[in-house]
Amino acid sequence: MNRNNEDYRAPPIPALTKDLLEDVKKIFKTTTGTPFLIPTTGTGAWESALTNTLSPGDRIVSFLIGQFSLLWIDQQKRLRFNVDVVESEWGQGANLEILAEKIAADRAHTIKAVCIVHNETATGVTNNLAAVRRILDEYRHPALYLVDGVSSICALDFRMDEWGVDVALTGSQKALSLPTGMGIVCASPKALEASKSAQSVRFFFDWNDYLKFYKLGTFWPYTPSVQLLHGMRAALDIIFEEGLDHVIERHSRLGKATRLAVEAWGLKNCTQREEWFSDTVTAVVVPPYIDSTEIVKRAWKRYNLSLGLGLNKVAGKVFRIGHLGHLNDLQLLGCLAGVEMVLKDVGYPVKMGSGVAAASSYLQNTIPLIPSRI
Amino acid sequence: MNRNNEDYRAPPIPALTKDLLEDVKKIFKTTTGTPFLIPTTGTGAWESALTNTLSPGDRIVSFLIGQFSLLWIDQQKRLRFNVDVVESEWGQGANLEILAEKIAADRAHTIKAVCIVHNETATGVTNNLAAVRRILDEYRHPALYLVDGVSSICALDFRMDEWGVDVALTGSQKALSLPTGMGIVCASPKALEASKSAQSVRFFFDWNDYLKFYKLGTFWPYTPSVQLLHGMRAALDIIFEEGLDHVIERHSRLGKATRLAVEAWGLKNCTQREEWFSDTVTAVVVPPYIDSTEIVKRAWKRYNLSLGLGLNKVAGKVFRIGHLGHLNDLQLLGCLAGVEMVLKDVGYPVKMGSGVAAASSYLQNTIPLIPSRI
Amino acid sequence: MNRNNEDYRAPPIPALTKDLLEDVKKIFKTTTGTPFLIPTTGTGAWESALTNTLSPGDRIVSFLIGQFSLLWIDQQKRLRFNVDVVESEWGQGANLEILAEKIAADRAHTIKAVCIVHNETATGVTNNLAAVRRILDEYRHPALYLVDGVSSICALDFRMDEWGVDVALTGSQKALSLPTGMGIVCASPKALEASKSAQSVRFFFDWNDYLKFYKLGTFWPYTPSVQLLHGMRAALDIIFEEGLDHVIERHSRLGKATRLAVEAWGLKNCTQREEWFSDTVTAVVVPPYIDSTEIVKRAWKRYNLSLGLGLNKVAGKVFRIGHLGHLNDLQLLGCLAGVEMVLKDVGYPVKMGSGVAAASSYLQNTIPLIPSRI
Amino acid sequence: MNRNNEDYRAPPIPALTKDLLEDVKKIFKTTTGTPFLIPTTGTGAWESALTNTLSPGDRIVSFLIGQFSLLWIDQQKRLRFNVDVVESEWGQGANLEILAEKIAADRAHTIKAVCIVHNETATGVTNNLAAVRRILDEYRHPALYLVDGVSSICALDFRMDEWGVDVALTGSQKALSLPTGMGIVCASPKALEASKSAQSVRFFFDWNDYLKFYKLGTFWPYTPSVQLLHGMRAALDIIFEEGLDHVIERHSRLGKATRLAVEAWGLKNCTQREEWFSDTVTAVVVPPYIDSTEIVKRAWKRYNLSLGLGLNKVAGKVFRIGHLGHLNDLQLLGCLAGVEMVLKDVGYPVKMGSGVAAASSYLQNTIPLIPSRI
Repeated sequence: MNRNNEDYRAPPIPALTKDLLEDVKKIFKTTTGTPFLIPTTGTGAWESALTNTLSPGDRIVSFLIGQFSLLWIDQQKRLRFNVDVVESEWGQGANLEILAEKIAADRAHTIKAVCIVHNETATGVTNNLAAVRRILDEYRHPALYLVDGVSSICALDFRMDEWGVDVALTGSQKALSLPTGMGIVCASPKALEASKSAQSVRFFFDWNDYLKFYKLGTFWPYTPSVQLLHGMRAALDIIFEEGLDHVIERHSRLGKATRLAVEAWGLKNCTQREEWFSDTVTAVVVPPYIDSTEIVKRAWKRYNLSLGLGLNKVAGKVFRIGHLGHLNDLQLLGCLAGVEMVLKDVGYPVKMGSGVAAASSYLQNTIPLIPSRI
Repeated sequence: MNRNNEDYRAPPIPALTKDLLEDVKKIFKTTTGTPFLIPTTGTGAWESALTNTLSPGDRIVSFLIGQFSLLWIDQQKRLRFNVDVVESEWGQGANLEILAEKIAADRAHTIKAVCIVHNETATGVTNNLAAVRRILDEYRHPALYLVDGVSSICALDFRMDEWGVDVALTGSQKALSLPTGMGIVCASPKALEASKSAQSVRFFFDWNDYLKFYKLGTFWPYTPSVQLLHGMRAALDIIFEEGLDHVIERHSRLGKATRLAVEAWGLKNCTQREEWFSDTVTAVVVPPYIDSTEIVKRAWKRYNLSLGLGLNKVAGKVFRIGHLGHLNDLQLLGCLAGVEMVLKDVGYPVKMGSGVAAASSYLQNTIPLIPSRI
Repeated sequence: MNRNNEDYRAPPIPALTKDLLEDVKKIFKTTTGTPFLIPTTGTGAWESALTNTLSPGDRIVSFLIGQFSLLWIDQQKRLRFNVDVVESEWGQGANLEILAEKIAADRAHTIKAVCIVHNETATGVTNNLAAVRRILDEYRHPALYLVDGVSSICALDFRMDEWGVDVALTGSQKALSLPTGMGIVCASPKALEASKSAQSVRFFFDWNDYLKFYKLGTFWPYTPSVQLLHGMRAALDIIFEEGLDHVIERHSRLGKATRLAVEAWGLKNCTQREEWFSDTVTAVVVPPYIDSTEIVKRAWKRYNLSLGLGLNKVAGKVFRIGHLGHLNDLQLLGCLAGVEMVLKDVGYPVKMGSGVAAASSYLQNTIPLIPSRI
Repeated sequence: MNRNNEDYRAPPIPALTKDLLEDVKKIFKTTTGTPFLIPTTGTGAWESALTNTLSPGDRIVSFLIGQFSLLWIDQQKRLRFNVDVVESEWGQGANLEILAEKIAADRAHTIKAVCIVHNETATGVTNNLAAVRRILDEYRHPALYLVDGVSSICALDFRMDEWGVDVALTGSQKALSLPTGMGIVCASPKALEASKSAQSVRFFFDWNDYLKFYKLGTFWPYTPSVQLLHGMRAALDIIFEEGLDHVIERHSRLGKATRLAVEAWGLKNCTQREEWFSDTVTAVVVPPYIDSTEIVKRAWKRYNLSLGLGLNKVAGKVFRIGHLGHLNDLQLLGCLAGVEMVLKDVGYPVKMGSGVAAASSYLQNTIPLIPSRI
């Protein structure tokens, strides 16, 4: 990425973009989807998904299970949709029974879309996307299926076509390990069709302008960051070299190792059931006499370790260990050792080395996958 | 900018942001304005300016003088404003007489905003911003004054406070010479006040979320590109080291030199009057028997020189020489020498060296300002 | 360092060099020494130290305690000095009793220099430099005192002036954490005096050419790497920001933590006595039924962890853990966790987590020093 | 090159080195030569060439034609060779008639080597290497043939095998456009044979240690700069993409264009005959009433343009324009425009634009070669 600006209308950038658009479909596991690489953040990607497919007043079902789903719902409301919120206790996954009831009851098809966060970063909960599709199919309900894959796509198992997802999205700074600045949105043919009649006012996020320039072969309705495009090329090359399935397997190993460490420390996972365990982030509940904010502060200050704060309802009660992106065994173990030292430091009676021992015993038994060295 | 991702909630990023927000006011020449550094492009910055201050149906006066003002007007219309377009021939500046008439006639204050592009990149026309303010003041008209400064701010003389501009905006990839990805918007107190009642639907671009996080001292409602923040720090340091006034003077020298070269080649400036000459881009009219597109193509292919295409109405008739950003005398002269070779190559009877001679004779007589070497 | 080539005769490079030469004295703890920044490696720095101060046939006392002292002695012999080798068992420090005997016996002052490696990287042995000076002083012996500080200076306590060292040297790729390519040599006034009569044939490494250009104020007899000069500026800034004493303390903490881990694993330190323990590298002896080479291979292949091989006499018997340079607690702990996994993997009955527990229990009780965060 | 240090003993570095050694032969146009990539500068490469093939007292013929040949001769003398200097006036090439006489007279083969600088950077003189070989062949003289190709190899036509060169050398910072720090030396089988009996004292520069590690497949007797190795990989890839012959042709175009500009300015080329004109550097003689040093100073200060000073005998009389490395038409023309402005500035009555016109008229008639765009 470390290069000068280039003219995005000169031949190399369209050629680069064309290849990226083809390759980005692979990380969504779609052949029929149309990707958009938008100069924005995840929040902008959300806006793109909603405003291109829906009209003000449209009824949408949206699951509230943590801070990021809460923010998305806030956006949905402020963009004037009629949001039917299905709330779960923080630490639980989306309540699909209520979804099933609502879908079953909605013979008139007033529900225009179902919105779900694949992986709720605030609580470390991964939702069952295949199950949502099964419910929609069971009732042959035509609602659009919109998925926030910000902290999942390219790290967790995600299958756009197989699961019939209509709009999926992620951001450059997550599993692709790039700087922030590119919202990556992928639309199914059904979503593109919906965009033709969607009445939400939009311009910057309008897919139509992109589609117009796709046809012209120049690809960009306005100036992209050519540095991010080159960075994305490199990130995809690294991912494809390791193999997307290996990348997902690696996240699975590291997620499991982290949970074993948490267990060894005698602490509780904020995620209430195993089926929801996230392989990209683990939210850890601290005992009532400890302020999790202090853990995050000290980890950063003493060990240059960035843990996640407990957000909103779980503020002070939870801290989060991220294990997403270009991360290997030893980096995770170093991080777990740091957490142990901080736990001790704030007065939690952790047995030093216990979490690392649990994690490394597991990791040692499975073969890590460093691509060029196998 | 060449650094790893950092946690944008950890202490260094808010501290960095705070300083940037203070310093960015200097390039707008404002002390009362509030800046927003939005992860978007110039197009998104436009959208931010419009949706935060206006409501659908609002009457706005907007000047159409070239491709970029055309695109902004397209956005204004699609965002459902009632756009009162004041069109000029391409190559002319904004028709301020018509503005004066409209303002004079609008005793009911139905005009909610006047929108103007400071420097129209397609035709190399710089509008007289002070004159617009004089007209508004003359009739004590309360319309908001919105300025697209994408290809001007930090390169041309721009004075937000003195000229009573309510929203001004630029992008990171222009005079700051950074990668694309940051829309820089600055709002006057009056614009902030307007944002409280503006009815345009918005979320990603909503200033209110920024203001909320400004108060909290964490500054960011969603993830910024920390690389761009560090890049902006470096870009501002470079600009302040040279001195903003020296930067503007340097653009003035290079603009003048370019126009002298065009004259020496016997070609016409697309800009029809001297008062509108732009110091950041020069649009050159080619004779009817030459296709300007061919000039741009060959310049890139043969000499790795990026010229600008003629856009829309002036397609094929005009090519553009950019002289914006971190550029020095010799880079400009090399570029002019390249243009000469391409002109010859496409059959225009240019006298080789004539443009360079005119430009360098002028430049040699004035002292270039390389800061640390004076 | 990521910058274009610059003309090393233009004003900025001499100015940069001048400051570097002043600042580099601080890491040698000298005010009277003269530093040379030679475009070479540690091996070239050795050659510079020897050929500038000695003449072929000169008798020198040199300590053989491991692979790097062995290589230096090989160089001393091939450069035609008369090397009086004082050998110790690998894992022991320099035998200073024998030195004392030789110095005591040398009333005719036939010994022209004493050569010692401060920190023998192959065995993790740190020699007592102050004691060498005491011996020389006791007998008022005028021998030059030459010290290889490649893996010590800027990480271990080193005091050129206080210990009366005549030539000390290091390389850019060690404690400064820069790329290889700069040999950093510092000469006492006595060494400079000796250089006037030293008969060793030399040109590239001749200090005299440097001194000539120092006087001219242009500093370089031939082209330096301007990138490395800028890199050195940055490295010194980082070190001075942390504080040289804090840097040394940090190495002391990490060295101690590593040794505690080795002990917890039930393995032996190759270094036979505590007085010789090195804070920049720990050589670990493996049981006879394990090939240490296999440990190094697997660590690299499975965990992207670079351990050091056992060299020469200790090949297959020892592996080395480096803890030198820009390293923090969690990186070390991650590394130790990796070693545990590999030990288990090659059949050593390590208790998982035991080394990390021992190291982190120690580290947790002491405050790490991250400069800007204290 | 912008990457972390890597363990140079881990598998990727030997693999990288192996490929580099194969590819580097191509730029020397040799199939039988053995290359050495030494962590040093051009001066060190000279030393490597001399000390590995010759013994103190050996008679060598060496041509003095400018500052760089002078420095090499100084080295030859200080390394204790018996240097038979063949001097030419500065601005002339090597006097091959005298060489022929000496070779003819030397029936006893007392001349052990002929040393010549291919391209004398101080005066812009390129020597005729093929002619030297013809002389040696005519008299069947066995002298070694040593060539300094620092400012020629990879830019001028150089044919190691065809011309029977025994040692050729260059540096990373010249035609390869890398940072300084790698001396690239290539030895013929005859030179390798000579190294077995050469009595010059050497260690750091000893080829034998390299050859030993080549056999082991680990390649490095001491630590290389892995960053420079990766940089060299990139530099060679860029050169091979353009095509070595195209690179040489490009230098030929730019050299010719520069000379046409000098002629147009009414100034004299320091190089006295066309047969010696250099395509990598042009030394320009200024009229007696102008101090060329002032030209160099102002070019740097005003225009950030690095010209070369006149050195030694031509100090104040000559300035030099470099046209070596990764340079294109417009960069050269910008540089020539800068020279014109400075000439005017110091009082020389140059016709502005005249040099650029002459150069660009020539360049415009020939097709520049930008590889991926043809």
